[in-house]
Amino acid sequence: MKVGYLGPKATFTNIAVNNMFPKEEAIAFLTIPNCLDAVLEEKVDVALVPVENTLEGSVNITLDYLIHEVNLPIKGEITVPIKQHLMIHPIHMEHFDKMEVVYSHSHAIAQCHKYLHSEWNGIRCENTTSTAAAAQFIKEHPEVMGAAIGNELTAKEYGLTIIKRNIHDYDNNHTRFLILANKRIEFHSPSCDLQGYKTTMMVTLPADRFGALHQVLSAFAWRKLNLVRIESRPTKTGLGNYYFIIDLDRKIDDVLIPGAIAELEAVGCKVQVLGSYPAYAIND
Amino acid sequence: MKVGYLGPKATFTNIAVNNMFPKEEAIAFLTIPNCLDAVLEEKVDVALVPVENTLEGSVNITLDYLIHEVNLPIKGEITVPIKQHLMIHPIHMEHFDKMEVVYSHSHAIAQCHKYLHSEWNGIRCENTTSTAAAAQFIKEHPEVMGAAIGNELTAKEYGLTIIKRNIHDYDNNHTRFLILANKRIEFHSPSCDLQGYKTTMMVTLPADRFGALHQVLSAFAWRKLNLVRIESRPTKTGLGNYYFIIDLDRKIDDVLIPGAIAELEAVGCKVQVLGSYPAYAIND
Repeated sequence: MKVGYLGPKATFTNIAVNNMFPKEEAIAFLTIPNCLDAVLEEKVDVALVPVENTLEGSVNITLDYLIHEVNLPIKGEITVPIKQHLMIHPIHMEHFDKMEVVYSHSHAIAQCHKYLHSEWNGIRCENTTSTAAAAQFIKEHPEVMGAAIGNELTAKEYGLTIIKRNIHDYDNNHTRFLILANKRIEFHSPSCDLQGYKTTMMVTLPADRFGALHQVLSAFAWRKLNLVRIESRPTKTGLGNYYFIIDLDRKIDDVLIPGAIAELEAVGCKVQVLGSYPAYAIND
Repeated sequence: MKVGYLGPKATFTNIAVNNMFPKEEAIAFLTIPNCLDAVLEEKVDVALVPVENTLEGSVNITLDYLIHEVNLPIKGEITVPIKQHLMIHPIHMEHFDKMEVVYSHSHAIAQCHKYLHSEWNGIRCENTTSTAAAAQFIKEHPEVMGAAIGNELTAKEYGLTIIKRNIHDYDNNHTRFLILANKRIEFHSPSCDLQGYKTTMMVTLPADRFGALHQVLSAFAWRKLNLVRIESRPTKTGLGNYYFIIDLDRKIDDVLIPGAIAELEAVGCKVQVLGSYPAYAIND
């Protein structure tokens, strides 16, 4: 089986793939749309892309592309802890305290802001297009007295030495990834734990929209269907027009969820189930 | 009065400033946080920053910075139509059909995708950091057979000639901007129409969160307080923890909105009113 993921190599998405699909062939794509299109074009069997991060919120391009461009069911999700490490070229091990500059993606630098400020006295930071690009630069420029911020896999992939582990400011930073495919997917991953099941649906409200949102939530509330997430995204037809993406914390059943959907449709909503799937997390 | 805005010069934010504050001194800032900080540091009296676009959705950095970093009340909003034009160096007017490349910000290029595809046969496109940067490049490189995509003000500011107006694919594309200040602001703008009033609040739910969201909407619904927008943003404390930003389509009053807020607080929500303010739009 071929697994497409948002590259480049050694990103957190790559870590998600290695844990969920340890024995499959992993193929990196440069953008999220490229990765999703690759499933439709049958270049890969499965796509794995980020959908939400604790600090940044939703990955809008993933939601928008699933809503507007491709019809691709969600088959699973995997949550990965975001742990950042400081790494250098091995030849600088003896004098790593002489570092003058830190390279990484702007998000990774932001995630380590307090550490860099307190431990490295606000050292100069340079943005790169990815954490992998930072590691590659350090590897290829041993003459630069610089460090990169990246994950464990980045250090391994580019042969760098980690001089300080877990330099991220927030300990509870995680990213959720969606696994999308047109075929049945079996999960056998010893390094991931099943956390439960989710059902994700997209709801479009009728014209008198926001009393309608209350009505939508009522249909779930009286059935004690528990929403774990609600996110609005623009329909792109005008300011003030939204879709809602709703996650329930259970598998789709034969009675309650179909009953809620039937009621919502009867009051003028459009409802599309995007998937009903197991939710995994990497065991620590 | 000094008005800080998200620069560079000649962006749509600049157009919003010119319309709302035609007689005031406008000062460009390179980032949204810089612009908001400038009000706190009293470098400017007012900040004007984008908060929502029809196609892209919320401007997360604006919401997050208002929630997590600065306490700055919303004093008004202005909605601007996003109209993109194709412009060239005036010396190429005689042979503009020989264009080989189009420069602009990736969003502007995306907004004109269908036009460029059908009228220019999928001409090569190059991304720049802003539409203004594209116009500056065209101005300074008359030897390049290229065009820029940008707005009316960009063409004027950089002395370029518009060869085709309104090349954007979606006619109803608008951006909403917030006007933030610690002092009272008077609006006298002949080119803008008052559309109504809004009240924006941030609501944090108690622990059993999503039945609670239904409860929150009930407090508004039975009072017939009309929500025109609800947006979830992460609290940054863990996946699944959100704030909700809620816009009502009216001015804050003495009875209904305070009553709803008191009830929400009584059931364990935290509520903060971010502003109650007039909403303007540029008259077409």
